[in-house]
Amino acid sequence: MTDQSPLGRKLSAFVALSDAELAVLAGLHQRRRVFVAGRDLVHQGQSKQAAYILASGWVCSYKIQPDGSRQIVDFQIPGDFLGLRSVLLRTSDHSFEPIVDIEAAEVLASDLLKAFADTPRLATAIFWAASRDEAMVVEHLVGVGRRDSDARMAHFLLELGSRLALVGIGSKDGYDCPLTQYHLADALGLSAVHVNRVLRQLRERGLVTFRDGHVSFDDRDRLAELAEFDSTYLDHEGPLLK
Amino acid sequence: MTDQSPLGRKLSAFVALSDAELAVLAGLHQRRRVFVAGRDLVHQGQSKQAAYILASGWVCSYKIQPDGSRQIVDFQIPGDFLGLRSVLLRTSDHSFEPIVDIEAAEVLASDLLKAFADTPRLATAIFWAASRDEAMVVEHLVGVGRRDSDARMAHFLLELGSRLALVGIGSKDGYDCPLTQYHLADALGLSAVHVNRVLRQLRERGLVTFRDGHVSFDDRDRLAELAEFDSTYLDHEGPLLK
Repeated sequence: MTDQSPLGRKLSAFVALSDAELAVLAGLHQRRRVFVAGRDLVHQGQSKQAAYILASGWVCSYKIQPDGSRQIVDFQIPGDFLGLRSVLLRTSDHSFEPIVDIEAAEVLASDLLKAFADTPRLATAIFWAASRDEAMVVEHLVGVGRRDSDARMAHFLLELGSRLALVGIGSKDGYDCPLTQYHLADALGLSAVHVNRVLRQLRERGLVTFRDGHVSFDDRDRLAELAEFDSTYLDHEGPLLK
Repeated sequence: MTDQSPLGRKLSAFVALSDAELAVLAGLHQRRRVFVAGRDLVHQGQSKQAAYILASGWVCSYKIQPDGSRQIVDFQIPGDFLGLRSVLLRTSDHSFEPIVDIEAAEVLASDLLKAFADTPRLATAIFWAASRDEAMVVEHLVGVGRRDSDARMAHFLLELGSRLALVGIGSKDGYDCPLTQYHLADALGLSAVHVNRVLRQLRERGLVTFRDGHVSFDDRDRLAELAEFDSTYLDHEGPLLK
């Protein structure tokens, strides 16, 4: 049995899942629905006990500050959980907005906790995925706190490329990307004007081109050098648990 | 059987652990050692497969940027894991430095993975704690990205107070705190001079006093109002899993 879901593909990078474990994972995908772009799935402060597994499309997770400004915490791509942390913490500490129309499977807290109890190796794999998500948030904190805007953007575009590659989307040369300059601005702590200027500079230096919904790595090695991008925090080495 | 370790106390806020689960948790505390202040436990990029449970003292986790600047990601207090993510991701994405002399128990990756497999409820509780850690990193990202320096400092001092209270340290009125202005600066993305000024302003406004290694909440309500501090992301409501 092979689970062709993006999540199954991602978790297999960490744990060689058995047929029984893959069956439980497939079971978590049953309540699948379409959500339209721009309407939040989960609101900050909401305490409904469900998470979602993103099957297709892009989502952003964000927090709105009292002054109305928005900090995007991360983007979710196919195979990512939405609100996994909210299930465990009982209240969502942020909101999720589909950037395009998406397909996602709702996972009830009770089903998730049962899956953890019944299939500990699957739980460990999901824990790994959550740890990887946290490592990305740490990188975003370091980026906003300490990287200049060129390096911050370069790091961000490379990270997305690596994440997409793990679930079989895009190629070494680039990937389709529905993000606007406003998304990039709110994620990187820059203004939209600044985002535009940084992207133009990176393009003119022959490093990366983000245009018409597509990111092309013109010179991946030099881009990685600029960003000091070290992908070990994404951990794609092959299963730790055989 | 009661587990009086700070970690046992913290996890019990989420899962009512059985005697068998508490015994496994106590087993993870066996390899206990003292580490002296200022010498890193785990280096960025190190791939030794062990985590630590902090039993006493304070630690900071940080990343050094190529230009030598340091971003402190978080501080660890008794009951916190150090490097749990590193075990799952196989390489540490950051470094840990004891701020004072500490006592910590080394947990081998194999022991941890075995505990996850044998006691899924304990695993879920540890997953909860890791989710809570991630929620804090998200708050730090939002702080550095979007909060002004007064609100950022106020939020940080309130968060620490809540975390310490959960493991039985400090009181509603304040807590002992070994952090220097340099720690605060590197955590909050401010200069040490700026930290000094912010702390003086908060003190002069009658909100909080941080002096001689002690934080006193002079007016906790107004401080929380300034920080827009909403502690739900710390989730201290009592066990979800009975």
